[in-house]
Amino acid sequence: MPLQFADRLNNVETSAIRELFKLLGKPGIISFAGGFPDSAMFDVDGIRAASNAALDQEPGAALQYGATEGYQPLREQISAFMTSKGAAALAPENLIVTTGSQQALDLLGKTLISPGDKVIVEGPTFLATIQCFRLYGAELISAPIDADGVQTDVLEQLIAEHKPKFVYLIPTFGNPSGALLPLDRRKKVLELAVKYNTLVVEDDPYGDLYFGEAPPPSLLALSAQVPGSRDLLAHCGSLSKVLSPGLRVGWLVAPPELLAKATMCKQFSDAATSTFAQATAAQYLKAGRLPGTLTRMRAVYAERAQAMGDALRKDLGQAIAFVQPQGGLFVWARLTGAGGKVADGNAFAKRAIEKGVAFVPGTPFFCAQPDSATLRLSFATADVEKIREGVARLAQAL
Amino acid sequence: MPLQFADRLNNVETSAIRELFKLLGKPGIISFAGGFPDSAMFDVDGIRAASNAALDQEPGAALQYGATEGYQPLREQISAFMTSKGAAALAPENLIVTTGSQQALDLLGKTLISPGDKVIVEGPTFLATIQCFRLYGAELISAPIDADGVQTDVLEQLIAEHKPKFVYLIPTFGNPSGALLPLDRRKKVLELAVKYNTLVVEDDPYGDLYFGEAPPPSLLALSAQVPGSRDLLAHCGSLSKVLSPGLRVGWLVAPPELLAKATMCKQFSDAATSTFAQATAAQYLKAGRLPGTLTRMRAVYAERAQAMGDALRKDLGQAIAFVQPQGGLFVWARLTGAGGKVADGNAFAKRAIEKGVAFVPGTPFFCAQPDSATLRLSFATADVEKIREGVARLAQAL
Repeated sequence: MPLQFADRLNNVETSAIRELFKLLGKPGIISFAGGFPDSAMFDVDGIRAASNAALDQEPGAALQYGATEGYQPLREQISAFMTSKGAAALAPENLIVTTGSQQALDLLGKTLISPGDKVIVEGPTFLATIQCFRLYGAELISAPIDADGVQTDVLEQLIAEHKPKFVYLIPTFGNPSGALLPLDRRKKVLELAVKYNTLVVEDDPYGDLYFGEAPPPSLLALSAQVPGSRDLLAHCGSLSKVLSPGLRVGWLVAPPELLAKATMCKQFSDAATSTFAQATAAQYLKAGRLPGTLTRMRAVYAERAQAMGDALRKDLGQAIAFVQPQGGLFVWARLTGAGGKVADGNAFAKRAIEKGVAFVPGTPFFCAQPDSATLRLSFATADVEKIREGVARLAQAL
Repeated sequence: MPLQFADRLNNVETSAIRELFKLLGKPGIISFAGGFPDSAMFDVDGIRAASNAALDQEPGAALQYGATEGYQPLREQISAFMTSKGAAALAPENLIVTTGSQQALDLLGKTLISPGDKVIVEGPTFLATIQCFRLYGAELISAPIDADGVQTDVLEQLIAEHKPKFVYLIPTFGNPSGALLPLDRRKKVLELAVKYNTLVVEDDPYGDLYFGEAPPPSLLALSAQVPGSRDLLAHCGSLSKVLSPGLRVGWLVAPPELLAKATMCKQFSDAATSTFAQATAAQYLKAGRLPGTLTRMRAVYAERAQAMGDALRKDLGQAIAFVQPQGGLFVWARLTGAGGKVADGNAFAKRAIEKGVAFVPGTPFFCAQPDSATLRLSFATADVEKIREGVARLAQAL
């Protein structure tokens, strides 16, 4: 008799793009598929210095079990970092450290979702969010986006109709959309939270990676301007895209009662995030190196984004439509079918692999009504020359 | 309107001993309460060298996202370590790295437990296991222990009666019992797994911390002798008690299908365990320092266990009963009430705090039918002198 697994596993399947990723090992492949930062840009010296400082100054604490809420010096550094970005009056006690922001999503699911509960997400949204919430039995509702992110008028209708447990958004340089939600829509989202007494979860791993002007304030920062909204807002942050994903350091800001329940759930999920990684991150932030690292990253990603946009316009022309991203890691594009070219993202992805370039087709990012003409192209890990070569291969595949 | 949390939270409450731990900050308290190793014994130099080697030799990999299954060089080191302890033919692919063994428990719960499923655990067992499984809706059944661990004849009756989803055991120096399951009972457990087609989960964080002779082989190692049992066995291991809890490096060995499902669940729990911590652990194991560290730890904990046992016999005499532990971190004791002394562990814990010594009363470790006369005393973190002073205070409190 085979093992009988939990019913909740019936709600998910292993990600379709994992299969795609197995092909990435092929020699000579240029990859626009990843969702990660460029390893070549990690501040290895800074991280080595930080980790040695942690082991020199606080070896007992850095190697011992830590509080489930997080290592206090890191909570203090994160709270200062968030305050510097406009989140007024954010005390260390208003956040907990999580094992990457993926764990913050998992804790929100565990804490809030009973089987059958509805959750509204953007269509498209982060693939692992869809799977994570479905594992807890959520029924996901797709809120459509346009070039400016989620359409708040449709979002309001969906909230009114479905009375969701919460709304999950990536308002700043979304994954996969790359879209930037403008200030007026941000305010509208917070007003909807209050009007419908609905929790909003803001996932913000990319907000620091802007190329020109800084984006509008996060929902967390803006909540001070919309009375009552702060009590209905959770915010997930992460060092993965700006410092190192390998540290697995993220955080969750939430109203006190929710934060207490999430902490209890975390106690039984992994007891605590690696204190060694947390102490290293705290020393890194304390050393004041992050602003310099961010400046460097922004410049490199801005150059690559521009190169990708230029090459796509030049080589694929009318066959593809996209909005030039103002930050983040991704170009979200749509095949137009112009000139009788291929208009299906999945078919295009297979042809592209044969030509030696990889990307992720758009359909897996939709929890419902997938737009099969879409695709996600990451410009983060290939240099400008590789980006041009990769786009040229895309053009051949098309 | 307050937030409405998931139904699963109704099954648990924040641990009673968390409240106790808040009192530990009182100046001058001698603590026998913790479940952690002594920070003073961490091999800080070895870990610093390992972390620097990781950043020098493989910075990109050590700081990037890693495979959900774990960092391959670490999986190889763990597989070699487990093989050296008798787990024949354990390939790196037979295990995944987890964020501490707490996450292995969480993944087993997420993968296997549907609300209402029955799980058999020892009475008493690890507190966070009880809460972790209850969060997934498990109904826990308590299998009684004696000085030699779980009573396998009663266990068989309970398996036959309840047909549990799985049986969870800590066979080697259990927490809180400190008990060592003898070879014949180990074989019997594996035979029961096969006879009743029941999955057995072996949690083994303490097996390397023996004071005299090495304990009998783990269930995992023994499974080669009981045909069919390996397919019905999961094994949780950890570096937390032997190297550093702050790395949060544990592992799960399980049959292929279960391991694949657990990996999928881990993908949406925290994506991967810190690759920085994993690469550090891999370099540490590769450097061959663990055997020396273990020898040193065994000697120190053996001395402390002896000192605690001697002091308890001398100062508390007939008022307390316990089996001298042969390994691990804990003395599990029972108040006899002899001479009219206090016989309730909770009342005794309160009096003890007033006298300046802390321990954990036994009742929270039972999922049912608690024995209120029991208590858990850790000898791991206080030195011999403090242990004698602490036991003297216990005698006053009694």
